[in-house]
Amino acid sequence: AGGDIAAGKAKAAVCAACHGAAGISAIPMYPNLAGQKEMYLVNALKAYKAGQRTGGMAPVMAGQAMALSDADINNVAAYFSSLK
Amino acid sequence: AGGDIAAGKAKAAVCAACHGAAGISAIPMYPNLAGQKEMYLVNALKAYKAGQRTGGMAPVMAGQAMALSDADINNVAAYFSSLK
Repeated sequence: AGGDIAAGKAKAAVCAACHGAAGISAIPMYPNLAGQKEMYLVNALKAYKAGQRTGGMAPVMAGQAMALSDADINNVAAYFSSLK
Repeated sequence: AGGDIAAGKAKAAVCAACHGAAGISAIPMYPNLAGQKEMYLVNALKAYKAGQRTGGMAPVMAGQAMALSDADINNVAAYFSSLK
Protein backbone atom coordinates (compact mmCIF):
# COMPACT_ATOMS: atom_id res chain seq x y z
CA ALA A 1 0.00 0.00 0.00
CA GLY A 2 2.75 2.42 0.98
CA GLY A 3 0.80 5.10 2.83
CA ASP A 4 2.37 8.23 4.35
CA ILE A 5 3.26 7.44 7.95
CA ALA A 6 3.50 11.05 9.13
CA ALA A 7 0.14 11.95 7.61
CA GLY A 8 -1.25 8.75 9.08
CA LYS A 9 0.00 9.65 12.54
CA ALA A 10 -1.80 12.98 12.41
CA LYS A 11 -5.00 11.36 11.15
CA ALA A 12 -4.78 8.58 13.76
CA ALA A 13 -5.06 10.92 16.75
CA VAL A 14 -8.76 10.09 17.02
CA CYS A 15 -8.00 6.34 16.98
CA ALA A 16 -5.91 6.54 20.13
CA ALA A 17 -8.99 6.87 22.31
CA CYS A 18 -9.84 3.20 21.76
CA HIS A 19 -6.71 1.69 20.22
CA GLY A 20 -4.17 3.34 22.54
CA ALA A 21 -1.68 6.13 21.84
CA ALA A 22 0.91 3.60 20.62
CA GLY A 23 -1.57 1.28 18.96
CA ILE A 24 -1.79 -1.05 21.94
CA SER A 25 -5.34 -0.92 23.24
CA ALA A 26 -6.03 -0.76 26.99
CA ILE A 27 -9.58 -2.03 26.41
CA PRO A 28 -10.01 -5.80 25.89
CA MET A 29 -12.63 -5.53 23.14
CA TYR A 30 -10.57 -3.16 20.99
CA PRO A 31 -7.78 -4.71 18.92
CA ASN A 32 -4.14 -3.76 19.12
CA LEU A 33 -3.10 -2.16 15.83
CA ALA A 34 0.64 -1.70 16.40
CA GLY A 35 2.65 -3.82 13.96
CA GLN A 36 -0.47 -5.21 12.30
CA LYS A 37 -0.21 -6.01 8.57
CA GLU A 38 -0.65 -2.76 6.56
CA MET A 39 -2.76 -4.36 3.82
CA TYR A 40 -4.98 -6.06 6.40
CA LEU A 41 -5.61 -2.71 8.11
CA VAL A 42 -6.51 -1.14 4.76
CA ASN A 43 -8.89 -4.01 3.95
CA ALA A 44 -10.47 -3.94 7.41
CA LEU A 45 -11.07 -0.17 7.28
CA LYS A 46 -12.54 -0.45 3.79
CA ALA A 47 -14.81 -3.30 4.97
CA TYR A 48 -16.10 -1.11 7.82
CA LYS A 49 -16.53 1.82 5.42
CA ALA A 50 -18.47 -0.38 2.96
CA GLY A 51 -20.71 -1.76 5.69
CA GLN A 52 -19.27 -5.26 5.26
CA ARG A 53 -18.73 -5.60 8.98
CA THR A 54 -21.70 -5.50 11.33
CA GLY A 55 -22.29 -6.64 14.88
CA GLY A 56 -20.34 -5.83 18.04
CA MET A 57 -18.44 -2.55 17.84
CA ALA A 58 -18.69 -2.49 14.04
CA PRO A 59 -21.13 0.44 14.00
CA VAL A 60 -18.62 2.55 15.94
CA MET A 61 -15.86 1.64 13.51
CA ALA A 62 -18.08 2.17 10.47
CA GLY A 63 -18.63 5.75 11.60
CA GLN A 64 -14.92 6.29 11.98
CA ALA A 65 -14.05 4.67 8.66
CA MET A 66 -16.64 6.66 6.73
CA ALA A 67 -14.85 9.86 7.80
CA LEU A 68 -11.65 8.62 6.13
CA SER A 69 -10.72 9.02 2.48
CA ASP A 70 -8.88 6.17 0.74
CA ALA A 71 -5.65 8.17 1.15
CA ASP A 72 -6.36 8.60 4.88
CA ILE A 73 -6.95 4.85 5.14
CA ASN A 74 -3.62 4.08 3.45
CA ASN A 75 -1.80 6.58 5.68
CA VAL A 76 -3.37 5.41 8.95
CA ALA A 77 -2.65 1.79 8.02
CA ALA A 78 0.98 2.65 7.22
CA TYR A 79 1.30 4.48 10.53
CA PHE A 80 -0.05 1.69 12.75
CA SER A 81 1.80 -1.06 10.96
CA SER A 82 5.02 0.93 11.44
CA LEU A 83 4.61 0.84 15.23
CA LYS A 84 6.38 -1.94 17.10
CA ALA B 1 -12.64 -14.94 28.40
CA GLY B 2 -10.02 -17.23 29.88
CA GLY B 3 -9.79 -19.97 27.27
CA ASP B 4 -7.50 -23.00 27.56
CA ILE B 5 -4.22 -22.11 25.86
CA ALA B 6 -3.02 -25.70 25.35
CA ALA B 7 -6.33 -26.77 23.80
CA GLY B 8 -6.24 -23.60 21.72
CA LYS B 9 -2.78 -24.38 20.44
CA ALA B 10 -3.92 -27.78 19.21
CA LYS B 11 -7.01 -26.33 17.58
CA ALA B 12 -5.00 -23.50 15.99
CA ALA B 13 -2.82 -25.79 13.88
CA VAL B 14 -5.06 -25.10 10.89
CA CYS B 15 -4.75 -21.33 11.40
CA ALA B 16 -0.98 -21.40 10.92
CA ALA B 17 -1.32 -21.81 7.17
CA CYS B 18 -2.44 -18.18 6.83
CA HIS B 19 -1.65 -16.57 10.17
CA GLY B 20 1.83 -18.07 10.61
CA ALA B 21 3.03 -20.77 13.01
CA ALA B 22 3.70 -18.15 15.71
CA GLY B 23 0.72 -15.98 14.87
CA ILE B 24 2.75 -13.60 12.73
CA SER B 25 1.44 -13.86 9.19
CA ALA B 26 3.83 -13.97 6.22
CA ILE B 27 1.03 -12.84 3.90
CA PRO B 28 0.21 -9.10 3.84
CA MET B 29 -3.58 -9.54 3.66
CA TYR B 30 -3.76 -11.87 6.66
CA PRO B 31 -3.58 -10.24 10.09
CA ASN B 32 -1.02 -11.04 12.72
CA LEU B 33 -2.76 -12.66 15.69
CA ALA B 34 0.11 -12.96 18.16
CA GLY B 35 -0.51 -10.80 21.23
CA GLN B 36 -3.86 -9.58 19.92
CA LYS B 37 -6.56 -8.82 22.54
CA GLU B 38 -8.24 -12.10 23.58
CA MET B 39 -11.76 -10.66 23.76
CA TYR B 40 -11.31 -9.01 20.36
CA LEU B 41 -10.30 -12.35 18.83
CA VAL B 42 -13.36 -14.02 20.36
CA ASN B 43 -15.64 -11.26 19.03
CA ALA B 44 -14.04 -11.33 15.57
CA LEU B 45 -14.38 -15.12 15.28
CA LYS B 46 -17.99 -14.96 16.43
CA ALA B 47 -18.68 -12.20 13.90
CA TYR B 48 -17.28 -14.38 11.10
CA LYS B 49 -19.27 -17.38 12.39
CA ALA B 50 -22.48 -15.31 12.48
CA GLY B 51 -21.91 -13.97 8.97
CA GLN B 52 -21.44 -10.42 10.28
CA ARG B 53 -18.29 -9.99 8.26
CA THR B 54 -18.45 -10.17 4.47
CA GLY B 55 -16.17 -8.98 1.70
CA GLY B 56 -12.46 -9.65 1.11
CA MET B 57 -11.25 -12.84 2.75
CA ALA B 58 -14.30 -12.99 5.05
CA PRO B 59 -15.79 -16.02 3.29
CA VAL B 60 -12.61 -18.00 3.96
CA MET B 61 -12.68 -17.02 7.63
CA ALA B 62 -16.41 -17.69 7.94
CA GLY B 63 -15.79 -21.26 6.83
CA GLN B 64 -13.05 -21.64 9.42
CA ALA B 65 -15.06 -20.05 12.21
CA MET B 66 -18.13 -22.18 11.54
CA ALA B 67 -16.04 -25.28 12.28
CA LEU B 68 -15.26 -23.94 15.75
CA SER B 69 -17.41 -24.38 18.86
CA ASP B 70 -17.62 -21.49 21.33
CA ALA B 71 -15.14 -23.34 23.54
CA ASP B 72 -12.76 -23.73 20.58
CA ILE B 73 -13.10 -20.00 19.89
CA ASN B 74 -12.24 -19.13 23.51
CA ASN B 75 -9.28 -21.51 23.48
CA VAL B 76 -7.86 -20.35 20.14
CA ALA B 77 -8.25 -16.72 21.22
CA ALA B 78 -6.45 -17.44 24.51
CA TYR B 79 -3.67 -19.19 22.63
CA PHE B 80 -2.98 -16.43 20.10
CA SER B 81 -3.24 -13.63 22.63
CA SER B 82 -0.70 -15.48 24.78
CA LEU B 83 1.91 -15.33 21.99
CA LYS B 84 4.39 -12.44 22.05
